[in-house]
Amino acid sequence: MKGKFNKLLASGLTVLLLSSATSALAQSDEAQDAIEYRQSALQLIRANFGVMADMVRGDVEFDAAVFAQKSKNLSHLAHIPWDGFTGAGANTSEGTDALPEIWEDWSDFEQKAQALVDASAELALAAEDDNMGQIRAKFMATVQTCRECHNNYRAD
Amino acid sequence: MKGKFNKLLASGLTVLLLSSATSALAQSDEAQDAIEYRQSALQLIRANFGVMADMVRGDVEFDAAVFAQKSKNLSHLAHIPWDGFTGAGANTSEGTDALPEIWEDWSDFEQKAQALVDASAELALAAEDDNMGQIRAKFMATVQTCRECHNNYRAD
Repeated sequence: MKGKFNKLLASGLTVLLLSSATSALAQSDEAQDAIEYRQSALQLIRANFGVMADMVRGDVEFDAAVFAQKSKNLSHLAHIPWDGFTGAGANTSEGTDALPEIWEDWSDFEQKAQALVDASAELALAAEDDNMGQIRAKFMATVQTCRECHNNYRAD
Repeated sequence: MKGKFNKLLASGLTVLLLSSATSALAQSDEAQDAIEYRQSALQLIRANFGVMADMVRGDVEFDAAVFAQKSKNLSHLAHIPWDGFTGAGANTSEGTDALPEIWEDWSDFEQKAQALVDASAELALAAEDDNMGQIRAKFMATVQTCRECHNNYRAD
């Protein structure tokens, strides 16, 4: 009787362990996908930012067409990373620079994300004209939206 | 005399080898950046496509808000990969599925890229309304623009 019970218990535990292992694995896959998604999007943003920053700093000669293209890319990409912070398994900062405050202060985080969308749209508009003072001002305003979010929600 | 000449030759060869190694390395870094850029962008496109495809196929229940969001993401991302095929070092298909024909038939490639931009914008517009027939038609038209480009310019 005891043997039978132990066998039943063992079999029950195996099912339990297997199902929780499966669920942990599924969650981890989803989390990994979400993290990769947002990190890829932020990396693409950084790549476009870098080209513009070099020009604004004067490290690379200003090329109006290239700057306009990168600012247009940025204004599109500004919409993208945020889906990678939502959905099943996405609310994890494990092994990343994302701080848990993102999900605690979600509406503030969303506002700061929207600030990048708005500022980069204004930058892309400014980049269509040949007014370097205006371009520089809009670029710095865009950089400021990055900083305000990173200061609150990024570890480094 | 012979020894001196050999030494000079060796030193010259070293300089030559070092400088071409540096140049090969620089080009390879730029190529690597370009490849990563376009592959990241295409991967983000795929991620958004996947969610919509599951819903269009009926594998996942249609969620109008999620579909609209993904189609909007796609319409932004449709602008992004192409910069990763241009610029110094970018015109390489080495170790990727990109075919050399991309750079041989550049204006056709650009037209096919623009077709995705146009079709995905129409899809995002259709996704604002609750007309499943229209959404499906615009989704299939968008898929077709992917296929037409991949058939000509992707190895697999």
